[in-house]
Amino acid sequence: MQRARDVSEDELLEAFLPIIKSHNTKADRLVLGPGDDCAVLELRDGLTVITTDTQTEDQDFRRTWANGMVTSGYDVGWKAATQNLADIAAMGAAPQTLLISLTLTPDTPVTWVEDFARGVTEACTAQGAEKCSISGGDLGAGSEISVTVTAVGTCLAPVLRSGAQTGDALVLAGAVGTAAAGLALLENSSSYQLTPGLSACIEAQQRPCSPLASGAAAAHQLTAMLDVSDGLLRDAGRIARASCVNIDIDAAALSPWVARVQETADLCRAPSQSADDLALHWVLTGGEDHGLLATCPADAVPAGFTQIGRVTQPGGSVTVDGKTYRAKGWDHFEATAR
Amino acid sequence: MQRARDVSEDELLEAFLPIIKSHNTKADRLVLGPGDDCAVLELRDGLTVITTDTQTEDQDFRRTWANGMVTSGYDVGWKAATQNLADIAAMGAAPQTLLISLTLTPDTPVTWVEDFARGVTEACTAQGAEKCSISGGDLGAGSEISVTVTAVGTCLAPVLRSGAQTGDALVLAGAVGTAAAGLALLENSSSYQLTPGLSACIEAQQRPCSPLASGAAAAHQLTAMLDVSDGLLRDAGRIARASCVNIDIDAAALSPWVARVQETADLCRAPSQSADDLALHWVLTGGEDHGLLATCPADAVPAGFTQIGRVTQPGGSVTVDGKTYRAKGWDHFEATAR
Repeated sequence: MQRARDVSEDELLEAFLPIIKSHNTKADRLVLGPGDDCAVLELRDGLTVITTDTQTEDQDFRRTWANGMVTSGYDVGWKAATQNLADIAAMGAAPQTLLISLTLTPDTPVTWVEDFARGVTEACTAQGAEKCSISGGDLGAGSEISVTVTAVGTCLAPVLRSGAQTGDALVLAGAVGTAAAGLALLENSSSYQLTPGLSACIEAQQRPCSPLASGAAAAHQLTAMLDVSDGLLRDAGRIARASCVNIDIDAAALSPWVARVQETADLCRAPSQSADDLALHWVLTGGEDHGLLATCPADAVPAGFTQIGRVTQPGGSVTVDGKTYRAKGWDHFEATAR
Repeated sequence: MQRARDVSEDELLEAFLPIIKSHNTKADRLVLGPGDDCAVLELRDGLTVITTDTQTEDQDFRRTWANGMVTSGYDVGWKAATQNLADIAAMGAAPQTLLISLTLTPDTPVTWVEDFARGVTEACTAQGAEKCSISGGDLGAGSEISVTVTAVGTCLAPVLRSGAQTGDALVLAGAVGTAAAGLALLENSSSYQLTPGLSACIEAQQRPCSPLASGAAAAHQLTAMLDVSDGLLRDAGRIARASCVNIDIDAAALSPWVARVQETADLCRAPSQSADDLALHWVLTGGEDHGLLATCPADAVPAGFTQIGRVTQPGGSVTVDGKTYRAKGWDHFEATAR
């Protein structure tokens, strides 16, 4: 098997670029794609929104998990693209281009790089962002695989975190909790039979889908929005603090999301823990599904969103059924285990 | 000493953000800075150019070198900013914003992060890009320090690699060879006295300066341009291939650049090698100075550029004084040593 150390940088690019160039034939804002010092884009019709995010091996994914499953290049590419596309959608913007910086270990198979490129482009296409080009990037070597994606979008009026108003509904589009349930399965080395329900959770962790189109379509109806990347409670807290409001989440309204992780919770719960508690915990604190959390006038919940709570009064904190919930979402440095 | 593992992600950001926010007060295109899912920029007056580049510990820098010198957070921030600003300048564009994704090892001192932020902002200011904002980023953990910077600029008409014409002058602004000479010194563990000439080479490796303003100001006079990041010969070859022309470099015209690395070559040459040969080798093949290599009509060399050769005829290759030079520039995977 050919590995990164066996080929030149140019040869690696030859594995990568044809997939990207084929994808870019659908792009409509790309004036000049990969190959010069910069890509050139035509973005003159709105404000430009931009974000960047890194995934690092053994921090954000493992090549082989405790349960024996592997994370393919396709998975890493898919997830890196989705994370950044979700940040664009969370501004109410349309994605226009991605740039990708890929750091490879010398033993990375060349086929991994091809799979990665396919994962990036198919994540765009599957989530309705087929016109979002891959306009550039960088390729380098390191002791662990690391992927940084930068995403650029355009919008007329961005939806910020700071616009939530007392009386607004708290609304959610997309998944929460399933990626955390999938992570628990991937890190569960006991023997179990994979059912469709369990597989769906693993898929949510490896290849999350964000409701990109719902975010952009609803932008004009929303007062605040963000991408749920660090957990519902923690991210609701960000809206609460930025908007200086209190937010109360209605636990009963989360039951459709809780139901989706119940089977996994049954399998993964500690002996002292109830499956119901663990399932609700994942839904309230699990990140990485890249659902969109937003606020809007209570009488106008947009298509694709479901009400899960409300903005109760001026303040800056979040409660669940009126009470403080004990756990928090993910912190890269505070957490002792993942 | 406080280290990354001792503090939360939010506390690390508190070390970083005040420096960035102070810098951003001079920005004039930034609608919304760090803190939301995306930054928001006003870039409606031209085409948008964009590039991304990663620096990884022990690939692109060492925290401690063989000669005992250290690479500070300031150095890493400075160099990461400069590399990307140079790519913007090489399109003939004005830099508008940088995004920074920083992966830290748990033992990274918190003061390293502050130094890094100062290095980024002071590299912008010192190179005339004080209005270029730092609009966002990402912070994560890994087993090696890694920095990915994305730079965005605007221009009316980008200068590509593909526009060189037979009869054009080959022109150069900024440094070549000094960063390679500096690298040789950093990796030279023998005992020697640091003179101003040697120190200048080390400074060029650790804190390179790119002639950003010369690139943007000359854009309308140039037929092709790129950032010399991988060595004069290799990067001239990129213009040659993209423009389908032959380029001949005049070795004698490189004498000002050769003179700047002569003292270092005297110190670092192998017993079998002449200092003159090593000095010319660095100038022809050394990357990382981020000089700007361009072509223009022979009778109109722009201010800040010096003629170092010419475009001789249709083709796609590069010669030095009419002959093929044997060595090439840097390849992340092909090279066996650095």
